[in-house]
Amino acid sequence: MTFIDYTGLLGALLTTLSFVPQALKSLRQGSTEGISLLMYALFVTGLIFWLLYGFLLMSWPIILANSCTLVFAGAILGMKIRHVLHDHEKP
Amino acid sequence: MTFIDYTGLLGALLTTLSFVPQALKSLRQGSTEGISLLMYALFVTGLIFWLLYGFLLMSWPIILANSCTLVFAGAILGMKIRHVLHDHEKP
Repeated sequence: MTFIDYTGLLGALLTTLSFVPQALKSLRQGSTEGISLLMYALFVTGLIFWLLYGFLLMSWPIILANSCTLVFAGAILGMKIRHVLHDHEKP
Repeated sequence: MTFIDYTGLLGALLTTLSFVPQALKSLRQGSTEGISLLMYALFVTGLIFWLLYGFLLMSWPIILANSCTLVFAGAILGMKIRHVLHDHEKP
């Protein structure tokens, strides 16, 4: 692995793992109040295009980062949609 | 511009712009309650490494996406730190 790979891997790890504390905080609070529905809808859609870009370039840090981030950001989006629909949270 | 460039550009635009509605929502509410401080601290640090990766690969979609995202995510991190310090918000 080259130095370039390491910087991409570190960027991938940090930006991906960053969504874990947010998902845990929202789960613990049983609320996604303050979180923007539009942010997560745009972000998750964007991740799908990044993933496609990674596959087309065959860049494994981009593929790895975006598929993991998609899981966590997708979970937050799912929670937000549920709270907007069932708990009358603001979007 | 190739098809590959377009997918990267679209991913970049969507994931970058996604932070704008979150920043506006937090500004409007005058609160970042519900937002995880640790998420934004890790995310902003990760963006700096992604930016370095983009420069080393000379991939302009990665450079463009991450520098813009850094501005918006950095603004949200700044607001969160301010509200934790001054308004006793939970981190």
